[in-house]
Amino acid sequence: MAHSTTASVLDGTEPDFPAGRTETDFLGTRTLPDSAYWGIQTLRAVENFPITGTAISAYPQLVKALAQVKHAAVLANSDLGLIAEAKKDAIVQACVDIEEGGLLDQFVVDVIQGGAGTSTNMNANEVIANRALEHLGLGKGAYSAIHPNGDVNMGQSTNDVYPTAIKIATIKGGLELLEAMQHLRRALARKAVQFDAVVKVGRTQLQDAVPMTLGQEFSTYEVMVEEDELRLREALAHLHEINLGATAIGTGINTHPRYAAIARTHLSGITGLPLVTAGNLVEATQDCGAFVLFSGMLKRIAVKLSKICNDLRLLSSGPRAGFAEINLPPRQAGSSIMPGKVNPVIPEVVNQVAFEVMGNDLTVTAAAEAGQLQLNAFEPIIARSLFASLAHLTAACTTLADHCIDGITANKEYLRSQVEASIGVVTILNPIIGYDAATSIARQALSTGASVSSLVLERELLTAEQLEEILRPEHLARPQSPVFDRLPAS
Amino acid sequence: MAHSTTASVLDGTEPDFPAGRTETDFLGTRTLPDSAYWGIQTLRAVENFPITGTAISAYPQLVKALAQVKHAAVLANSDLGLIAEAKKDAIVQACVDIEEGGLLDQFVVDVIQGGAGTSTNMNANEVIANRALEHLGLGKGAYSAIHPNGDVNMGQSTNDVYPTAIKIATIKGGLELLEAMQHLRRALARKAVQFDAVVKVGRTQLQDAVPMTLGQEFSTYEVMVEEDELRLREALAHLHEINLGATAIGTGINTHPRYAAIARTHLSGITGLPLVTAGNLVEATQDCGAFVLFSGMLKRIAVKLSKICNDLRLLSSGPRAGFAEINLPPRQAGSSIMPGKVNPVIPEVVNQVAFEVMGNDLTVTAAAEAGQLQLNAFEPIIARSLFASLAHLTAACTTLADHCIDGITANKEYLRSQVEASIGVVTILNPIIGYDAATSIARQALSTGASVSSLVLERELLTAEQLEEILRPEHLARPQSPVFDRLPAS
Amino acid sequence: MAHSTTASVLDGTEPDFPAGRTETDFLGTRTLPDSAYWGIQTLRAVENFPITGTAISAYPQLVKALAQVKHAAVLANSDLGLIAEAKKDAIVQACVDIEEGGLLDQFVVDVIQGGAGTSTNMNANEVIANRALEHLGLGKGAYSAIHPNGDVNMGQSTNDVYPTAIKIATIKGGLELLEAMQHLRRALARKAVQFDAVVKVGRTQLQDAVPMTLGQEFSTYEVMVEEDELRLREALAHLHEINLGATAIGTGINTHPRYAAIARTHLSGITGLPLVTAGNLVEATQDCGAFVLFSGMLKRIAVKLSKICNDLRLLSSGPRAGFAEINLPPRQAGSSIMPGKVNPVIPEVVNQVAFEVMGNDLTVTAAAEAGQLQLNAFEPIIARSLFASLAHLTAACTTLADHCIDGITANKEYLRSQVEASIGVVTILNPIIGYDAATSIARQALSTGASVSSLVLERELLTAEQLEEILRPEHLARPQSPVFDRLPAS
Amino acid sequence: MAHSTTASVLDGTEPDFPAGRTETDFLGTRTLPDSAYWGIQTLRAVENFPITGTAISAYPQLVKALAQVKHAAVLANSDLGLIAEAKKDAIVQACVDIEEGGLLDQFVVDVIQGGAGTSTNMNANEVIANRALEHLGLGKGAYSAIHPNGDVNMGQSTNDVYPTAIKIATIKGGLELLEAMQHLRRALARKAVQFDAVVKVGRTQLQDAVPMTLGQEFSTYEVMVEEDELRLREALAHLHEINLGATAIGTGINTHPRYAAIARTHLSGITGLPLVTAGNLVEATQDCGAFVLFSGMLKRIAVKLSKICNDLRLLSSGPRAGFAEINLPPRQAGSSIMPGKVNPVIPEVVNQVAFEVMGNDLTVTAAAEAGQLQLNAFEPIIARSLFASLAHLTAACTTLADHCIDGITANKEYLRSQVEASIGVVTILNPIIGYDAATSIARQALSTGASVSSLVLERELLTAEQLEEILRPEHLARPQSPVFDRLPAS
Repeated sequence: MAHSTTASVLDGTEPDFPAGRTETDFLGTRTLPDSAYWGIQTLRAVENFPITGTAISAYPQLVKALAQVKHAAVLANSDLGLIAEAKKDAIVQACVDIEEGGLLDQFVVDVIQGGAGTSTNMNANEVIANRALEHLGLGKGAYSAIHPNGDVNMGQSTNDVYPTAIKIATIKGGLELLEAMQHLRRALARKAVQFDAVVKVGRTQLQDAVPMTLGQEFSTYEVMVEEDELRLREALAHLHEINLGATAIGTGINTHPRYAAIARTHLSGITGLPLVTAGNLVEATQDCGAFVLFSGMLKRIAVKLSKICNDLRLLSSGPRAGFAEINLPPRQAGSSIMPGKVNPVIPEVVNQVAFEVMGNDLTVTAAAEAGQLQLNAFEPIIARSLFASLAHLTAACTTLADHCIDGITANKEYLRSQVEASIGVVTILNPIIGYDAATSIARQALSTGASVSSLVLERELLTAEQLEEILRPEHLARPQSPVFDRLPAS
Repeated sequence: MAHSTTASVLDGTEPDFPAGRTETDFLGTRTLPDSAYWGIQTLRAVENFPITGTAISAYPQLVKALAQVKHAAVLANSDLGLIAEAKKDAIVQACVDIEEGGLLDQFVVDVIQGGAGTSTNMNANEVIANRALEHLGLGKGAYSAIHPNGDVNMGQSTNDVYPTAIKIATIKGGLELLEAMQHLRRALARKAVQFDAVVKVGRTQLQDAVPMTLGQEFSTYEVMVEEDELRLREALAHLHEINLGATAIGTGINTHPRYAAIARTHLSGITGLPLVTAGNLVEATQDCGAFVLFSGMLKRIAVKLSKICNDLRLLSSGPRAGFAEINLPPRQAGSSIMPGKVNPVIPEVVNQVAFEVMGNDLTVTAAAEAGQLQLNAFEPIIARSLFASLAHLTAACTTLADHCIDGITANKEYLRSQVEASIGVVTILNPIIGYDAATSIARQALSTGASVSSLVLERELLTAEQLEEILRPEHLARPQSPVFDRLPAS
Repeated sequence: MAHSTTASVLDGTEPDFPAGRTETDFLGTRTLPDSAYWGIQTLRAVENFPITGTAISAYPQLVKALAQVKHAAVLANSDLGLIAEAKKDAIVQACVDIEEGGLLDQFVVDVIQGGAGTSTNMNANEVIANRALEHLGLGKGAYSAIHPNGDVNMGQSTNDVYPTAIKIATIKGGLELLEAMQHLRRALARKAVQFDAVVKVGRTQLQDAVPMTLGQEFSTYEVMVEEDELRLREALAHLHEINLGATAIGTGINTHPRYAAIARTHLSGITGLPLVTAGNLVEATQDCGAFVLFSGMLKRIAVKLSKICNDLRLLSSGPRAGFAEINLPPRQAGSSIMPGKVNPVIPEVVNQVAFEVMGNDLTVTAAAEAGQLQLNAFEPIIARSLFASLAHLTAACTTLADHCIDGITANKEYLRSQVEASIGVVTILNPIIGYDAATSIARQALSTGASVSSLVLERELLTAEQLEEILRPEHLARPQSPVFDRLPAS
Repeated sequence: MAHSTTASVLDGTEPDFPAGRTETDFLGTRTLPDSAYWGIQTLRAVENFPITGTAISAYPQLVKALAQVKHAAVLANSDLGLIAEAKKDAIVQACVDIEEGGLLDQFVVDVIQGGAGTSTNMNANEVIANRALEHLGLGKGAYSAIHPNGDVNMGQSTNDVYPTAIKIATIKGGLELLEAMQHLRRALARKAVQFDAVVKVGRTQLQDAVPMTLGQEFSTYEVMVEEDELRLREALAHLHEINLGATAIGTGINTHPRYAAIARTHLSGITGLPLVTAGNLVEATQDCGAFVLFSGMLKRIAVKLSKICNDLRLLSSGPRAGFAEINLPPRQAGSSIMPGKVNPVIPEVVNQVAFEVMGNDLTVTAAAEAGQLQLNAFEPIIARSLFASLAHLTAACTTLADHCIDGITANKEYLRSQVEASIGVVTILNPIIGYDAATSIARQALSTGASVSSLVLERELLTAEQLEEILRPEHLARPQSPVFDRLPAS
């Protein structure tokens, strides 16, 4: 779905749109294009913030959430007898139009903007007002009938509408991420099952350690993702606390005492989310802690995905001068110069998303720290950073599952041969022959190239039968070692 | 309590300690000072990592937790019949000595160290072994009687002992932070009550907004801290999941099948913490997610403390050319050159702790991301960063409460006069006269210096009685405005 | 200028484009749309990396730089007699088309991509090959005549082409930033002159300190920007060192011994930049240090811009309950609920860009740290982060100059009155009456509300004439104080 | 050298030191221990900032630099006739005592402190004053003879003294780092020579690429360090610009017009550094840009060291199930449970220092961004972060050189066998047989296990003699390939 760019709005605005309606604010009168549902305040914002060239229409979830908030607010005002039925109906209809994906290209202010989100809120107020006027059969700009501030924004302030909409959009984005994570987790789980019996050398600090199975390696990744899903759900839960009804600074100025509760109930119904109103609205209006923690959670997910992808790239290194344990499915030619080279491009793109999410988390942190007194003026960059992290992590999980994990194969014979050659199996003998004797065997194996088994037999520490029993991979990869059956207390 | 530095250990080590016992490892034989409970592996580590000059004895909670883990392990091994009673008793006694604060100066390896914590674990194993030998009436170094690896480390690996000890120490540090936060919160709460009736101008984006009370400002801070306490408790809960019994890579090699459960039960008893064993020990051994999330939580606390302190510095700016709303208690002369100057030194130090915690969080994140395969080799720097953040945040909360919040006073008369002069009160008239008319009054007030009240009366928009009723501060700071009693639907 | 999105490329790709040419790689055969200049390798990449939805066409400087590199390479190959004249001419013409802005919409791979930039390089190779084929009167896909790898990429690898193009694009972006900074600096300089005689209270730690002029405040900002310009120029200089000719890993495999020097000479001519070839191409191919340092420099600029904007917001706080020293030009209505409120929206947007740049710097750092062996696979996210920082900082400087600095006015009378009331002027008396006596006066002034002058006279420390001379603002704001004319050695 | 901790100062301060001298400030009168050279302002600071327990004596370079600044200042005041000769002599002598390492334990304020460094400056003023009084034969606290503020701090403010001292200490620390880097670079250079003829498989994206030499790998690291040395020298150069003479806010209040120049000249002489006075002292007093850039440079060094260590750990992975290209010298037993395991502990500790430096850089950035108006109050945390980064990087370079690089050996035969088996050599055939044909050979080699050579011969693409000539490693690792001698234009 195409979104408009801020640049395209301004094509032709200097000088003003030649033939259109005029609107006036305290700075003067401007001509707007007839087709524009947005009004003069939006125009000012577009002119003031030519930063990224990307309009908020790039975040359809945010635009939809804004319409939902406006929708809930007008229903609440109607319930309280504060707005006439016809107006209410028209505004509701306009909100529904947007909730269903309409008018997206009318959300034209830049994603990075000053003003604590006021421009985004006014963009919504103006578009809804003009759309509602249309529904009433009136022309755009006839604000005496339906006013962007007086009617659409009634009982509201940017300072409660905007963070509430960000939270709703973030929750929706978070739910999409959860789905993608689940998808990834299942792909990992299938590999854990598939590789259940594939023994391999486990490694700590990149040095050969003790045996394990490749299935354990993948079930580890599965559990990592699963735990992150659990934690993400908890983090999402905290976002359900909203400050709608706080208006300007949390004192609820310009709202009816019963407004906050009624509006929240409507908004829960419209969004399908179990929203709650914050206990202290002054606090809720200035506090960005929920965003900081949520961003920290996204960073945790990113860090783990990056770790998994680092491992995948390492395990598939080669084909001949690397670990060569697994093969990632080839996705594209890997080199413009080296024929036949295939690279781990999917893990690599996930790593890069992870680095971006780490950076976004810092941006969120710095912006949150900079809040002053009754408001954090920097919520737009917080929102942008969170939305980017969410969208890119979601894409990363999906592409990792579909374009990489699903097609992984294992070099089973090679893996088994490495276990047999490995020195780490000597660890299992610790309880029997002691750490110092085991060390001696290990060092002799390393310097001579002999196998641990042969040295144990040579030193007559165990019989061949005992050794075979102890060194069976299925014993090595779990604590149920038969070693303990023959041990006296030391 | 003094802790030893790594530097002091090495004083005299080159050449070896003149007259002491000797120990041997695969690299050769070294002489150790008679007084040293630590052994040759610790000596190697001290020589290898001359990085910070600060020894792990700087973290008494970590040293204590290590002893507790060793204590639990030997009890489990004894329950399983794997260690003789007399050895067990001696090792337990040595552990208790350390748990009670003894031998702290024997923990001499550097806080930044390679080797994934092995040096810290071996430092503990050696000190405990030699102390246990003493309890048996034997000389230090008589490892054939009690061996650091074979006996003290029986059924253990650095890779389960070390992260388990870090988690216990972090939980303990977290509980201390919670106490300090509670202390701070109560100080804020007292101010919220004290300033309950002090009306002032609320501000958004540093511009005058609408009225509120100074009590609301402080109750906001109180709630911020309270919410952080709740979230911190949740984050601490996740740290109770340990991987003791995982040994080298999570497969539990060298452990009896029942060891993990028995050891965890003992450790819960010894520490008083409801610990649980991770469901997947391979995952738990390599995953640093809990630390990343916990660090993210500390960052959230830091960000909010910093925001509160930014506000305090702003509100107390002046005394004559600033906001001058509140007065922080003077703590020290503020300037070496400007007589009589008093600065907000306590909030400033808290800000700096916050910046440090933000940096520590990045360190934790980068270290966690760098984990490879079955282990994260960088846990020492993760531990160090967490311990620093915890300790400094705890100190910051305490000093902020005791040296700043408790002594804050308000300039009540000045605050009230500002409310009376403020233009933002025009907001309350929105529902009555509309946004556009209200804007007109606001701009006239601003340009002429007239008060909003006088202009409303001049324009005969309300009677003096109506205006007085509407503009009463207790009405302005809460949504129960009488405005709504007289409003028809718009 | 509209750029294509990756999404739009894929509209219709599943199943393949119904009627088009086919191309084959080792994964199979695919149908491509007739209109597409890109080929099968680009298609694979678009399918593999559906991350951001933003194509590399969003960075016209990068696309242009890629064409310039290809242009230089083919000229070098021609000079060395390695490519036929007709082919060379066609490829040159295709490159020039792109350098002049053509075919931008053909650069469709995602800005976040795996593969170390290979997809970007192959996108360029394919577009240039097909465009060159057109110039030869041949159909797209006739790669036996001109091959994307064999001809367009001759003597090249992604690993030298891509970082070279990134550097050129970064230099161009850096030069644009320099222009914007110069523009901002001049705006600040005009204010420094305009406010030269406006005395005000200087502040340290937000507490009133000693007098200065508002002109000094703005000249400080001017110098800050100027110094950053100097440092930025130095950082840009380091980017002129390229690794073209390194090919795959820096050994220059597949290049003629004279290729690197000839290609660099052509590239310098085409770009107008004094490029140099790195002394050690193996090092240059894997090292991202120049990007880390450059990003650190952008962060420094961001930090200073943010500091300046923090100050502007603080100095313009009010209008009635703030510092109220200066007035920022109103740019738009500040609130959807508070009539007449005007906010510092331009500084606020600059602050947010600064937070983003800080985050981008972390992304660059993390990506740079993750390089392995002979290549850093994560250059795409490094490039994206740098380009975003450059573009947004440039926009921020311009909008700050044009929409804010130029229109700033000062409240001169109020500022002067604050100087007269301030206590900090007592500092000037230190050398005469000593720090302790001066402290006593300061504290009396603070507690009684009396002026420092009146207390000095009351205590008969100076005559009225002496006092007037000493306290003249023009003396206070510079070290040439007449105090020193009357001082004996202490 | 032991430094005192802040905690030890306070042992016994509550209640006041039982029998000592008394001092008074505006908060009241306190008893100080007779032995203390510090005075009441230091005591206040110690009580106010119980944050880290580490006193500034932990930074001997900072303490020395403070004494040097005071030394230069009193000489300048003497030159200007502002201080009596006897006083001057006593103060100079006290400064020299400290410059020579004396009285270090008297610098007791916490390294994290509020007050923009005032407590550190006053700690120095008080210690110097009392030491100077001793030199005059007077008792501590006889401030009417020599006053900490009036005499020792004459013509100075914390706001010029403190950043000047930080810069000097940072330069000194930077020079030590340069020495350690040079030491490391030489170790790397020796390995580059030693491994000059060792051919190996180069890798991009962890996949086998084309041949190179191990000497090239190490010379790359050598050049990386060398370039960082060059850049570090440039960054250090910027730190030579000081603001001494700026006093409180840069206006030079309380200084003689000639003071700044004279003091700077003395300071250059005392420190041996070519210091310059900033052109705009108001700017220089509030600007932390030089620290941000310097920290960014340290981060760049850290990132590269980390990259080198990542490579070393990867190349030495094994011994049997890893890359096994090189062997790091064993430094200590690697595991408490796995006998004979040896880990790359030295690179690991360097990685961790790198993560810490990345975190410190963020702390510096956040602190710098938070500066307000005429001063950055957060310089103490900036200083602490820089000092930690410098000291730990210095230690890391030294330990990496001495404990790791020097002892590295190569598995030459294994490396050569990998080159012979590698598929990447097919790249060299690109110019001869074309990318597509070469791809076909590569894929056949991969799927069948055949060597590239055998397939080339089988397909009769080259004769055995031609092939041998082309594939000689010394040809592969440099651009002088004989391939080009037989190529016609394509």
